Amino acid sequence: MPTEIERKFLVDGDGWREAVESETRIMQGYLANNQNATVRVRVAGEQAWLTIKGMMRGPSRSEYEYAIPSEDAVAMLDELAVSAPIDKVRYRVRCGGHIWDLDVFAGENQGLVMAEVELASEDEPFEMPDWAGREVTGDGRYYNVNLARHPYRHW
Amino acid sequence: MPTEIERKFLVDGDGWREAVESETRIMQGYLANNQNATVRVRVAGEQAWLTIKGMMRGPSRSEYEYAIPSEDAVAMLDELAVSAPIDKVRYRVRCGGHIWDLDVFAGENQGLVMAEVELASEDEPFEMPDWAGREVTGDGRYYNVNLARHPYRHW
Repeated sequence: MPTEIERKFLVDGDGWREAVESETRIMQGYLANNQNATVRVRVAGEQAWLTIKGMMRGPSRSEYEYAIPSEDAVAMLDELAVSAPIDKVRYRVRCGGHIWDLDVFAGENQGLVMAEVELASEDEPFEMPDWAGREVTGDGRYYNVNLARHPYRHW
Repeated sequence: MPTEIERKFLVDGDGWREAVESETRIMQGYLANNQNATVRVRVAGEQAWLTIKGMMRGPSRSEYEYAIPSEDAVAMLDELAVSAPIDKVRYRVRCGGHIWDLDVFAGENQGLVMAEVELASEDEPFEMPDWAGREVTGDGRYYNVNLARHPYRHW
């Protein structure tokens, strides 16, 4: 079973910008979010993905991801998503031996900047970046699926 | 936008068996069924599919379907589906210029035999088979997503 283990942190300041390796505009929305699973549609640059995630068990969850045609993804976001899509730019930022995903949100979540690092195991060591602020792993408000329905600007 | 137009009928008797062109064991379950969309996982013979369908508008609905690895499908049915999978054998049955899908259900839906024909437009003519009984297009009880939760044997 594919499993995703990640830790998430708020981001303080702009110190991360000097370590950016790439950036991608992401639009994503959710076809479902129930007790068993979330179903996400994501358009990332020229590519698109359909992703099924199981429920969180601590920092772990099962994840199944499939590439799909971008035009399908755009149509599903427009027609079938349960709320307006999330709009963000994802920066890939190196820190020590890890690449972090740092998301600068726009639209209804403007002002929120959040970073996550994916780990091979729950106890894998990693270097904490200078710009990493408060850890929000497991805080439901910061799940993208919840940011879609209860955006940061309305908190 | 891909759109599926189909009409569904109950099946009377066994007259259809002489026109069977192929048969496939199908196991399917649902990751979601909400106001916007249903998300279905299907294992059909050696293949597997992830299918997103929009809400019905008469006999039409949008549909997006993607081949996925069978092992993913089996794991998702086991781990993430909202209810026990539907188990059925689908027979491909020719009648006039159309191929019908005729489903003989097992398990909790044993006793139910249902056939559907897919049409290119809502007014496309088709030959009605001898074995076609009452039309159930649009009757929610016969949607597979509802048969998963409220099986035929419990009606």
